[in-house]
Amino acid sequence: MRPTLAFDADDTLWHNETHYAETQAAFRALLRPFHDEAWIDARLHDTEMRNLRRYGYGIKGFTLSMIETALELTEYRLGGAGIQTVLDLGKAMLDKPVEPLPGVVEVLAELAPAFDLMLVTKGDLFDQETKLAKSGLGGHFTKVEILSEKDEATYAALLQRHGIRPADFTMVGNSVKSDILPVLALGGRAIHIPYHLTWAHEVVAIPAESPFPSLESIGDLPALLRGW
Amino acid sequence: MRPTLAFDADDTLWHNETHYAETQAAFRALLRPFHDEAWIDARLHDTEMRNLRRYGYGIKGFTLSMIETALELTEYRLGGAGIQTVLDLGKAMLDKPVEPLPGVVEVLAELAPAFDLMLVTKGDLFDQETKLAKSGLGGHFTKVEILSEKDEATYAALLQRHGIRPADFTMVGNSVKSDILPVLALGGRAIHIPYHLTWAHEVVAIPAESPFPSLESIGDLPALLRGW
Repeated sequence: MRPTLAFDADDTLWHNETHYAETQAAFRALLRPFHDEAWIDARLHDTEMRNLRRYGYGIKGFTLSMIETALELTEYRLGGAGIQTVLDLGKAMLDKPVEPLPGVVEVLAELAPAFDLMLVTKGDLFDQETKLAKSGLGGHFTKVEILSEKDEATYAALLQRHGIRPADFTMVGNSVKSDILPVLALGGRAIHIPYHLTWAHEVVAIPAESPFPSLESIGDLPALLRGW
Repeated sequence: MRPTLAFDADDTLWHNETHYAETQAAFRALLRPFHDEAWIDARLHDTEMRNLRRYGYGIKGFTLSMIETALELTEYRLGGAGIQTVLDLGKAMLDKPVEPLPGVVEVLAELAPAFDLMLVTKGDLFDQETKLAKSGLGGHFTKVEILSEKDEATYAALLQRHGIRPADFTMVGNSVKSDILPVLALGGRAIHIPYHLTWAHEVVAIPAESPFPSLESIGDLPALLRGW
C-alpha cells in the first residue's frame, strides 16, 4: 500500500484565519462606540469558548457568538441595523472565494504519484465541502475526511476506518494542536507549516524537544519528503 | 458480505421536526404583535430557502434565518431582548435531550445479527454527532455517515466508498425525497416510515405506482424484512 499524505485545509491549503481576523476587525469597529477594543475581543473569545460545546467550529457558530456578544456588550442597545450588520459579516465570510495558497496546486500534483493524498479538516461539514468545491482542489485527493474535532481519538478512528497503519500516515498542517501532536502520539509522522495567524483556541506550547519538522512554505514539502 | 440496512436518523430514530415546529410556534408568538401567523411562517420559510445554499441544513442556520426574518418583519423594531429570545430558542433546540422513538432500540438489537446497520443522516456534522451521542444508539451501528445532502450523487458516492452493491443496500427513513427516491433510482431498496410532520422542503409527490413499502412504525420492520 502506498503511504498516505494527509493535508489540513484551513490555513494550510487556503486562507482562513485571515478572514476571521478581518471580520473581527469589522465587529470591533461596530462596537467601538460602546467599549474598547481589547475588551470586545476578550468578550467575543469568551462567548465563542462558552458556545463551542453547543455550536462546534465554523462560521455559523461564530456569527451567532458575535450576535450574542454584541447584545451583551451593548445591553441590547445595538439595535436591529447593527445586528443585521453582523449577519451580513457572517454571510460575507461564507461567500468569500477560496483560492489555494501559493504553491499548493503544484505541490499536490507533484506528490500525487507517490502518495495517497487525503484531506483531513475539522469544522462545519457544509462549509468545508463548499470551500473544497470552490478551491478546485477536490480532484487531487483520493479521500476527504471532515471531522468535528481533530484529536487522538478522531485520528485513531480515521486510520482504522481506512485501514492505514500509523507508520504509513503523514499529516501536514499549520496547527500544532490539531495537526501535529495527536498524529505523533499515535505513531504517525507530522510536518508543520505555520500560518502567520493562529486562532487563540489552537495555541499550544510546542514541546522543547520538538520532534517534527517545520517548513516555511508548502513549496519545501517535496524536498523534505524525498530526504525523509 | 452481509446486506446493509441503513437508517435515517431525524424523525426516523428520534424526534426532530417536532422540535422545529415547537420553536417556530414560539417564534410566531414573539412576532405576533407585528404580523399575522401565516405571513410570519411564509417569510421564515422564504428566508430559510434563500439561505440554504449558504448555511446548509441544521439548527445554527435555522437560528440565523429566524434572526434575519425577525429583523426584516419588524423593520429593526424588535429590539435586542427579542433577538436574545431567538438566540435562546436556538440554544434550547441544541440542548434538547435525544430519546429514541418507541421500538427503535429493540428493533436495532433484533436486526443487528443479520445486517450491517448503518446510520445515514444529513445535516450539521457537529449537531448530528452530538445527537447520536445523546441518543445512546451509536453502538448499534457499524458505520455512520453524515452527509451535507442526500441525493443520488451522495448515495452513489457512499456505496462506492464502502464497496456496497446497490442490491445489498436497503434504506429506511421518513423522507420520500431524501431516503426513498434516490436509493430506488440507484437500484437499492427503500422502506418508508412516515413521521407525522414533514418539513415543507422535504415534501414531494409520491409516485402513483409507489414501488416501496410504507410502515406505520419501526416495530413492523423485522416482519417486513423476513418476508422480503
